[in-house]
Amino acid sequence: MLQSESRPSEVSQLQPTKTAIFAIGGAEDKVHGREILQAFFQRSGGHKAAIAIVPSASREPAIIGERYRHIFGDMGAAQIEIFDIRDRDQASDEQYLKYVEECTGVFLTGGDQLRLCGLLAETPIMERIRERGQTGEIALAGTSAGAAVMGHHMIGGGGSGESPNRSLVDMTMGLGIVPEVVVDQHFHNRNRMARLLSAIAIHPDRLGIGIDEDTCAMFEQDGWFQILGRGTVTVIDAQALSHTNQLDADVGDPLSLHSLRLHVLCHGDRFHLHQRRPLTPMSGEKSA
Amino acid sequence: MLQSESRPSEVSQLQPTKTAIFAIGGAEDKVHGREILQAFFQRSGGHKAAIAIVPSASREPAIIGERYRHIFGDMGAAQIEIFDIRDRDQASDEQYLKYVEECTGVFLTGGDQLRLCGLLAETPIMERIRERGQTGEIALAGTSAGAAVMGHHMIGGGGSGESPNRSLVDMTMGLGIVPEVVVDQHFHNRNRMARLLSAIAIHPDRLGIGIDEDTCAMFEQDGWFQILGRGTVTVIDAQALSHTNQLDADVGDPLSLHSLRLHVLCHGDRFHLHQRRPLTPMSGEKSA
Repeated sequence: MLQSESRPSEVSQLQPTKTAIFAIGGAEDKVHGREILQAFFQRSGGHKAAIAIVPSASREPAIIGERYRHIFGDMGAAQIEIFDIRDRDQASDEQYLKYVEECTGVFLTGGDQLRLCGLLAETPIMERIRERGQTGEIALAGTSAGAAVMGHHMIGGGGSGESPNRSLVDMTMGLGIVPEVVVDQHFHNRNRMARLLSAIAIHPDRLGIGIDEDTCAMFEQDGWFQILGRGTVTVIDAQALSHTNQLDADVGDPLSLHSLRLHVLCHGDRFHLHQRRPLTPMSGEKSA
Repeated sequence: MLQSESRPSEVSQLQPTKTAIFAIGGAEDKVHGREILQAFFQRSGGHKAAIAIVPSASREPAIIGERYRHIFGDMGAAQIEIFDIRDRDQASDEQYLKYVEECTGVFLTGGDQLRLCGLLAETPIMERIRERGQTGEIALAGTSAGAAVMGHHMIGGGGSGESPNRSLVDMTMGLGIVPEVVVDQHFHNRNRMARLLSAIAIHPDRLGIGIDEDTCAMFEQDGWFQILGRGTVTVIDAQALSHTNQLDADVGDPLSLHSLRLHVLCHGDRFHLHQRRPLTPMSGEKSA
């Protein structure tokens, strides 16, 4: 990055890293350009990064933890720790807690979001990770199950191949890192439009975010999120909802949702979480 | 139906049948309640119906033709003919043309929409079927491929499991029966949201209609369509589109579509094709 100051190296050392929260739709590129993982690495401080990998969503935490350690090590991270937390007691571990205070980036791997929340929700370690992520002190990323947990309300599981209906989605509590959203991942890849619509029918005050594979919604401190990667992020906004049969419909009945807003966002697009609008390219509008 | 007139049977004979155009998402119930097929049968005149079955989309037209003949016969149709048209010359057949002028309902079966259009587009028989359907002289139904052909623009084929992109959909010309719409069928069942979005990115002036299996959009003469059946009809309206990268994106690049309207409609819901709004239940609004 070009610096206009006379002492570029010192200035760059004094500037804090601009952190972000990364919700990744799963199957992110781990081999070639690694665009999304590189962005997380840079927002974690690049070569000065101290990264914690949390593989607790996975039933093979050692293997998946090592895989990401290799990737971020290969990129040149200064320090990498794997929080191999397999029961809730470990989520108060003093050494892990100490590292959470020192680290610059935390990465939640894929697996099962119910397992991840079961092990880590409301534990001292996860509370500090959430707080430090929300206040912008650290970069915080989650892929697949690690993205699913971002909202206050979470899709714990569900089905596909059916019309939207309440039995198509199992709603539960997420980690509340970006409480405004309900995330669905592997979105178009796994036919999850009906599932996310069913979730938004239940929680119409939340913003539905369907993230495709190798695609990321990167949330900045200023309320904007930006799209990275190869696919799209689908935004379902029920703010102007004029009718739903959600309260009257039996479980399994098809759902009715009138007057939703829908945005399909791709690489470089930005959307404001609270203003609920995309930044339209070429409009000359500034995002910050 | 109750009649307030003194001579109910004569009055009912004098009243013309209220026809409609039925776009059915495929796999409609053929065994149990047969709700959608019954509605088509009734709108064709019930026991006075003279139905033409067009099985040309199918590579097994004799088998599928007989299947529907059995169904409508079972319901009590007065007359049923199968137009087993296997080359374009047959689509000027005088006997078929004569029956088109006499019939009260035409049913287009499933199969391959490209085959159906290839055999029948702009033939004398199909032109008359379209005209009589559009002017409300006959009930006109199509299921699966038979629904796909309803629009002026038609999804000829495509893929699924990817982000919306131009290579995900093959656009071609339909039969123009309801020219305002682009139809996709087996919608949530076969993960076709991204395909329909890709189609609407190419033709944002058209209304995207994604119809689930055993579900029907029934178009009336007054501009309203109503939902019948077990699933949902997804309406994508790009009238307020504020941005798309469609013209700049390479084939295969993810598409961006800002500020779409989305409606999820189920049994009994109504939507106005030209006003582009749903009829909200309980609003006291009249549809006609």
